[in-house]
Amino acid sequence: MGPSQVLSLPLEWKGGGFGELTGLVVTSRVRLARNVARFPFSVAISPEEAEKLVELAFEAASRSPLFREAVKLRLDRMDEISRGVLFERHQISFDMMRASPQMPRGLILDGSGTVSVMVNEEDHLRIQVLLGGFRLREALDIAFKVDEVFEALGYAFDDEFGHLTSCPTNVGTGLRASVMLHLPAMQSSGVMDELLKHCNQLGLTVRGTYGEGSAVFGALYQLSNQVTLGRKEEEIAELVSRVTREVAEEEIARRDRTRRERGKAFLDHLWRAWGTLRYAQVITSKEALEKLSVVRVGSDMRILPEIPMNMWNELVLLTQPYHIQAMAGRELSPEERDVHRASFLRSKMELLS
Amino acid sequence: MGPSQVLSLPLEWKGGGFGELTGLVVTSRVRLARNVARFPFSVAISPEEAEKLVELAFEAASRSPLFREAVKLRLDRMDEISRGVLFERHQISFDMMRASPQMPRGLILDGSGTVSVMVNEEDHLRIQVLLGGFRLREALDIAFKVDEVFEALGYAFDDEFGHLTSCPTNVGTGLRASVMLHLPAMQSSGVMDELLKHCNQLGLTVRGTYGEGSAVFGALYQLSNQVTLGRKEEEIAELVSRVTREVAEEEIARRDRTRRERGKAFLDHLWRAWGTLRYAQVITSKEALEKLSVVRVGSDMRILPEIPMNMWNELVLLTQPYHIQAMAGRELSPEERDVHRASFLRSKMELLS
Repeated sequence: MGPSQVLSLPLEWKGGGFGELTGLVVTSRVRLARNVARFPFSVAISPEEAEKLVELAFEAASRSPLFREAVKLRLDRMDEISRGVLFERHQISFDMMRASPQMPRGLILDGSGTVSVMVNEEDHLRIQVLLGGFRLREALDIAFKVDEVFEALGYAFDDEFGHLTSCPTNVGTGLRASVMLHLPAMQSSGVMDELLKHCNQLGLTVRGTYGEGSAVFGALYQLSNQVTLGRKEEEIAELVSRVTREVAEEEIARRDRTRRERGKAFLDHLWRAWGTLRYAQVITSKEALEKLSVVRVGSDMRILPEIPMNMWNELVLLTQPYHIQAMAGRELSPEERDVHRASFLRSKMELLS
Repeated sequence: MGPSQVLSLPLEWKGGGFGELTGLVVTSRVRLARNVARFPFSVAISPEEAEKLVELAFEAASRSPLFREAVKLRLDRMDEISRGVLFERHQISFDMMRASPQMPRGLILDGSGTVSVMVNEEDHLRIQVLLGGFRLREALDIAFKVDEVFEALGYAFDDEFGHLTSCPTNVGTGLRASVMLHLPAMQSSGVMDELLKHCNQLGLTVRGTYGEGSAVFGALYQLSNQVTLGRKEEEIAELVSRVTREVAEEEIARRDRTRRERGKAFLDHLWRAWGTLRYAQVITSKEALEKLSVVRVGSDMRILPEIPMNMWNELVLLTQPYHIQAMAGRELSPEERDVHRASFLRSKMELLS
């Protein structure tokens, strides 16, 4: 499967997911870390054992109606751009994108573009459910169903601790429930460190756009649980949801305050970003995301023309470096990407203007 | 006469003046300095004598068919905004704008908005002909006709030196022939000092947008003769015209080179300026002129949508501080002006997009 085919695979979250906190919560994600008892953990697994594990996981998926329309991919045999596209879609992790051709690594994507199961990541199985908008509970319910599909492989499970995982931070439920939040007003108010402290006290954390250790692009932050042990899955999802609502309210209040305090200068800021996206002929990924963040605020606050979330998600996603190259059908230099990106943005912004 | 009436007076140069070097030569101007023999020079004139001189000049104009539809104004009795508007239109000098209410100062504007005659400026009479585009010879011919109208007042004239003037640099023909040139490529190449030196050797000079000692706005420079003595008027106009063609050619060559060398980044520069003018909600006079300069280049090079010179002149003129206030019908704070200016630009740019 090449870049253009990967591009055309369904992706649920791109559709937007209307409802509560639209525009503020971009995606909801639930991830379960699972290991198969009769295989060594990923750090110690041999390529032959890894190969066997991929086979078993693919077979398990094949037996379930949940994966009737699924696509099963071998990341170790995939070209770089295709892997990059999957990473930018948040369907595989950074480590999986950097997959070595010596180690068999698999990916199962369900037919709706909601579920992705990574095989031979840090854990044997990383079950991920990704939905557009604020829908953590729904994502959790789907994850439970997917979990049952692979349980037949025989999970490494301890009656006292729960699921055993490669990294001790995942032991227990193996659950990470996270939301992608758009927090430009909090970011520019310089309160993110404060928010992080507050979250840590609750057993939560705030991370960059592409997860742990990643940078923040376009004021997109991942809020997720840190503790996986000693709490029920539903409680974890509920806690993340509750804090999400608090943070979103704070963000909205800060946007309103900025608008009141800065007046016309605030409108100017929003409209100039619109003008840049509409007319730039060369634009870096970083600047594009910054400007997209600004126009998202303008749309949310009904100052700029409305940008539906499906359109905005598409703009954010398709202007990423690997997506730009996948659309062009070839590798592009950074300079070429900046030109392609600007051209793509212009064509879309013209439709919105 | 108040600001809104001054605003609605005809102004020939605003129409653009199509023809040779359109876009590069914004206006052509001829000015004759004249003094009336029986009055002391302006530095020594009393308010009573000045009053008499204004009357005489107004009467002389009334007797000529050239000034049949003329407007005769007393600058010393005029409000600040109206005077500012006349200054921004280049119909009166900086000193005349700053007119003291104690000293009678007159202005005669012909019905076509081509001729303006200042009474009691540095010289008793400053006859000015201002045309849109590159039309120095035409301006000179009109100036000669206007000169005949006021000759009946008895000019201070010396058979050896010619016309006598307040400042020795104007003795002789009393002529200044100048063109307003748009030179953004030469400006950004840093060759203006070199150009000035070259011009000085030829008896010419390069000045800021509003003449001697003024700053440069939007890369608009005045090229004019420095020497008024010992040369015929036609020769002076011819010399200024010849150097204008040379400078304009150099400017065009530099624009083409920049386009070749900078490629997409150059297009980006042009289109982003367009976007700013189209969408900004707050814009200073300085930034507006900078961006208008950039989109002028884009239009001249047929990269951006065409901006006809009459439209561009209007944008440049009506975004000036006094014009903005005249349009608003009241004094505005600098902050209010920046908002009004942006609003005006948006409405006009929308028509062009």
